[in-house]
Amino acid sequence: MSMHSEQSAVTVLGLGPMGRSLAGAFLDAGLRTTVWNRTPGKDRELVERGAVGARSAAEAVAASGLIVVCVVNYDASDAVLRGDAVADALKGRTVVNLTADTPDRARDTADWAAGHGIRYLDGAIMTPTTTIGTSAAVFLHAGPEELYQQHRPVLDALGGTHTHLGEEIGRAAAYDIALLDIFWTAMAGYAHALAVARAEGITARELAPFAQGIGAILPPLFEQTAEDVDGESFSGEGNPLTSAVSSMAHIVHTSEAHGIEAGVMRAAEGMARRVVGLGHGADGFSRIAEVLGRR
Amino acid sequence: MSMHSEQSAVTVLGLGPMGRSLAGAFLDAGLRTTVWNRTPGKDRELVERGAVGARSAAEAVAASGLIVVCVVNYDASDAVLRGDAVADALKGRTVVNLTADTPDRARDTADWAAGHGIRYLDGAIMTPTTTIGTSAAVFLHAGPEELYQQHRPVLDALGGTHTHLGEEIGRAAAYDIALLDIFWTAMAGYAHALAVARAEGITARELAPFAQGIGAILPPLFEQTAEDVDGESFSGEGNPLTSAVSSMAHIVHTSEAHGIEAGVMRAAEGMARRVVGLGHGADGFSRIAEVLGRR
Repeated sequence: MSMHSEQSAVTVLGLGPMGRSLAGAFLDAGLRTTVWNRTPGKDRELVERGAVGARSAAEAVAASGLIVVCVVNYDASDAVLRGDAVADALKGRTVVNLTADTPDRARDTADWAAGHGIRYLDGAIMTPTTTIGTSAAVFLHAGPEELYQQHRPVLDALGGTHTHLGEEIGRAAAYDIALLDIFWTAMAGYAHALAVARAEGITARELAPFAQGIGAILPPLFEQTAEDVDGESFSGEGNPLTSAVSSMAHIVHTSEAHGIEAGVMRAAEGMARRVVGLGHGADGFSRIAEVLGRR
Repeated sequence: MSMHSEQSAVTVLGLGPMGRSLAGAFLDAGLRTTVWNRTPGKDRELVERGAVGARSAAEAVAASGLIVVCVVNYDASDAVLRGDAVADALKGRTVVNLTADTPDRARDTADWAAGHGIRYLDGAIMTPTTTIGTSAAVFLHAGPEELYQQHRPVLDALGGTHTHLGEEIGRAAAYDIALLDIFWTAMAGYAHALAVARAEGITARELAPFAQGIGAILPPLFEQTAEDVDGESFSGEGNPLTSAVSSMAHIVHTSEAHGIEAGVMRAAEGMARRVVGLGHGADGFSRIAEVLGRR
């Protein structure tokens, strides 16, 4: 195999639902795609579609200049990459690690890669498997800009929007963590709201259109709150924290009156009350971000 | 004053930011508007715009057939309405209580009103003061349909969308509580995410466009989750609770590594882990709503 074909080829390590979607998009783009998974048998459909099924991770790595990793977390990623045979095979090649974990783990892996002559980019996938290969996919990347630009044509085969957030290798994971913080908290609130609504005789389908209305008002509020936080302007503007606390207390009360635990809202209320107790009751919700971030 | 003019007139009790917006919209619509606030001096601008400033709540009530109440909570609403003079003046008139509180408080007030010959509707305002009088306002109403239809023309002066949710008087407050549950939980997640992002060197304005992207994927997910919950179909479909829990643990870890408390996400993670522990780890997030609602 010539260096040229190695460089236009891609290997996918990890064939869970997301890894399979990534490999499928590379195949659809006509790239020579080699795949491997720790547990055998996950590559069958991909091989039928033209992928090369490698017998070992080292063999999979040796087949391509670009190695895309997508496993459950960095414990799994370390277990795959840091064995001697795979580390040797990776030398001089580029790893794009799309595994989700913390920024610290990305930084640690970049250090390890640098020590082994492996070029390293870290990324995050912000959208579900069904978006891969479509315009709806969202990818975040971090690491050396030049390396990113070199592999951009292959990454573009995954579809969607790719954003290079900077050279600091932990940056994609940091965005990922902050965005998932919003996502999972909102989903936890929604699941709880559905339970409370049901106890009040409201079906999920009855609540959903109004919940979608709440979803629609969040983006402009996110923008306004961000400007307040960066500008250190925490004015309540007719929506002071004392009102938020009162509203949160009503939610906790109604939930618990129905025997539904309200731990998430209790924690949110406690956080808001602490900020009120620090003398910020007339301020807006943006003050909470400032207080949480205090050293 | 003839009964006719009384019926086309409206009184607003409570002149906080929202009460003043409501009264302003009634004035803009050309309605004879009487206003009153417990603390004096809040009516000045409204009186300049043509409102009648009443000297007492009883006098304000006597001026109109429809009394709109918007105070901080039902403790305040009770304090205004349940005095003898006001209760006497309210007899035969209609109260639309737009004060936010729990469904139980709305039911209790409806019982009290029925015992005093007062016609009663309960409502909730889902949008900020700035939307009042515009197409962006959202009002929810509950109580006797005929009474609602009778006062609908005056309520329409407030602009926006009015939805009558049913005759059960607690229904508007129940929707309000469930929707605020989503709203405040999401905002708590966002405030926390901004603090974590900042600790990672990401400004609020840098995160905001991606946060808005998260906001945009919530409405269709709300719809899908609602269908799953009502249909008792809890399949994870490639996004099992075990993955959510792993993601939540990464968020807690990253937050606490920066010395930022993660109580809200810890509570959400605990809730999700409890559902996993009940044997639902392969299910989707909709399972959490079902487990929370179990008796």
